[in-house]
Amino acid sequence: MRATLLYAADDVRVEDVADPKIQNPTDAVVRIVLSCICGSDLWPYKSLPPSDQPRRMGHEFLGVVEETGSEVRGFEPGDVVVAPFVWADNTCVYCREGLQTSCLNGGGWGVNGVDGGQGQAARVPYADGTLVKLPVGEDSELLPDLLTLSDILCTGYHAARTAGVEGGDSVAVIGDGAVGLAAVMSAKLLGAERIVLMGRHTQRTDLGRDFGATDVVAERGDEGIAKVRELTGGEGAHKVLECVGLKDALVQSFGVVRDGGTISRVGVPQSADVPFGVGDFMRNITLTGGVAPARAYIEELMPHILSGALRPGRVFDRTVALDDISDGYRAMNDREALKVLVRP
Amino acid sequence: MRATLLYAADDVRVEDVADPKIQNPTDAVVRIVLSCICGSDLWPYKSLPPSDQPRRMGHEFLGVVEETGSEVRGFEPGDVVVAPFVWADNTCVYCREGLQTSCLNGGGWGVNGVDGGQGQAARVPYADGTLVKLPVGEDSELLPDLLTLSDILCTGYHAARTAGVEGGDSVAVIGDGAVGLAAVMSAKLLGAERIVLMGRHTQRTDLGRDFGATDVVAERGDEGIAKVRELTGGEGAHKVLECVGLKDALVQSFGVVRDGGTISRVGVPQSADVPFGVGDFMRNITLTGGVAPARAYIEELMPHILSGALRPGRVFDRTVALDDISDGYRAMNDREALKVLVRP
Repeated sequence: MRATLLYAADDVRVEDVADPKIQNPTDAVVRIVLSCICGSDLWPYKSLPPSDQPRRMGHEFLGVVEETGSEVRGFEPGDVVVAPFVWADNTCVYCREGLQTSCLNGGGWGVNGVDGGQGQAARVPYADGTLVKLPVGEDSELLPDLLTLSDILCTGYHAARTAGVEGGDSVAVIGDGAVGLAAVMSAKLLGAERIVLMGRHTQRTDLGRDFGATDVVAERGDEGIAKVRELTGGEGAHKVLECVGLKDALVQSFGVVRDGGTISRVGVPQSADVPFGVGDFMRNITLTGGVAPARAYIEELMPHILSGALRPGRVFDRTVALDDISDGYRAMNDREALKVLVRP
Repeated sequence: MRATLLYAADDVRVEDVADPKIQNPTDAVVRIVLSCICGSDLWPYKSLPPSDQPRRMGHEFLGVVEETGSEVRGFEPGDVVVAPFVWADNTCVYCREGLQTSCLNGGGWGVNGVDGGQGQAARVPYADGTLVKLPVGEDSELLPDLLTLSDILCTGYHAARTAGVEGGDSVAVIGDGAVGLAAVMSAKLLGAERIVLMGRHTQRTDLGRDFGATDVVAERGDEGIAKVRELTGGEGAHKVLECVGLKDALVQSFGVVRDGGTISRVGVPQSADVPFGVGDFMRNITLTGGVAPARAYIEELMPHILSGALRPGRVFDRTVALDDISDGYRAMNDREALKVLVRP
């Protein structure tokens, strides 16, 4: 089959790789119908040192079950399924608590002999634990929306949930990327009263307004902080959803959060340097979040998509064929595209 | 009156200062019956540069109301009262949420013309908001226990509450100082099943066992982390209460906390350097806590002291007269004494 390989920064190729096969009785093989490129794929795309051992790319996909191992009980060939961006047995002590990202037997896509999501098919370990059935056909118009259950919608929702967003809250969302926009949508779903989206790209922030942002602040740094404070009666936001991962975004988060408030970060941190000073301690600021256990939220969020109440698939503003995926990477990296769908 | 002044590291003096007087109609003047020395007093005691403007010391006291301003409604001369370690109006938006440490009109003891707690008397700003009446006489044997409502019991409780300690939790408490021991007691009160106290001073950890610690780990660093993990089924503790404030203690906290767990720190951080790495992000660790709004917890905790269920005053293992307070500082700094009572 064809799959996406990253050889070095700026060197994405689609090549022939081994067809996936059942290796363990708990595996399934899924023919991929729709995949996409993630903001987090851009970090290695920007920086990976050249190597003879290219990296298999992609961790967001949905598709059709082609084959199941002898111990798979919940799926059969023909089922349309979505996979979260981490596979997991969904039975261990962490999975039972909804922390599938810490599954004792789980792991990531594209590493250790597991296929990536940007290809024509994938072997899915622990299929019963990992996959979730989608009650639609593989030609459904909802597929782009449902694909966001793989990562970005659940990641934005994780930010809002771990921040404890609740009715009446003021929420600041840092970052107008796909996850930031999903965080806006999630904050609204949880009843936030005021949702301030901090971002500079008008097309994206306009979509953020559609998703529920009550205000947009384009300014950054001290000026942006002052604006958010002005919008929140001088106090700052009860909850801040940090959807970027850069230190500046975290500094901004501490600047806009209200005393006693919570910052939840879901953008993969690009530095271990956390600017959490004594002043923030005196203000009783909480820093939470982390990599999102998407699997924990899929069943909860899917009905909102099926009913049409949530349309997170609107973040996809470009579609490429698998063989043209390098153009998709380039477009996202150049900020020409917000998020790119890939059709194998 | 006599009051405690810190002129420089290792230079504590008791001198005559102006008698407190009502300055604002919301003030009260309290004759101090019992005070104490705080672990946090030791930081300036170790490090304050010499100055002609000595620092007024002390922020934990109880006593008897001597005089009230014209707008004070809740107290009258003769009332026995305890003061939390931050004064506050208890009516502003933050106070109403139980975050009196962020009171819009509040402040600390010993600064900006407000008396410290280690003296014979104190003017109490916003007396109605700040003080809490104690239903005992000034000769009560419970006074040392009740004095801990001023700071350490509420601070330990804040750690446990903000960490979200609940029935069945495993809790690690870092630090066997007075706040650590209060955190042990608080974790037990909130239903923790396993309470691992990390500390090296046998007398203190023995008291910790009396307060509810199920295990004591004397080792530090990697060895200490391994022991706690062994005691918690290899997983680590659900909640970690960091009651020291040094970076090593925070590093240890990240080491012993379970995936998805929470670290609450209440020891005043002695550095802004927070070792919150990408690995901790991938494990979904939450960092919470902060300076404790003691005022928020006094009414809730007092009944446990009055009933004899909690005896936090056992942390006091030495008593000095006010004029001998420098000996108390020395004893605490040399770890001869755990916590020192001061009788004006």
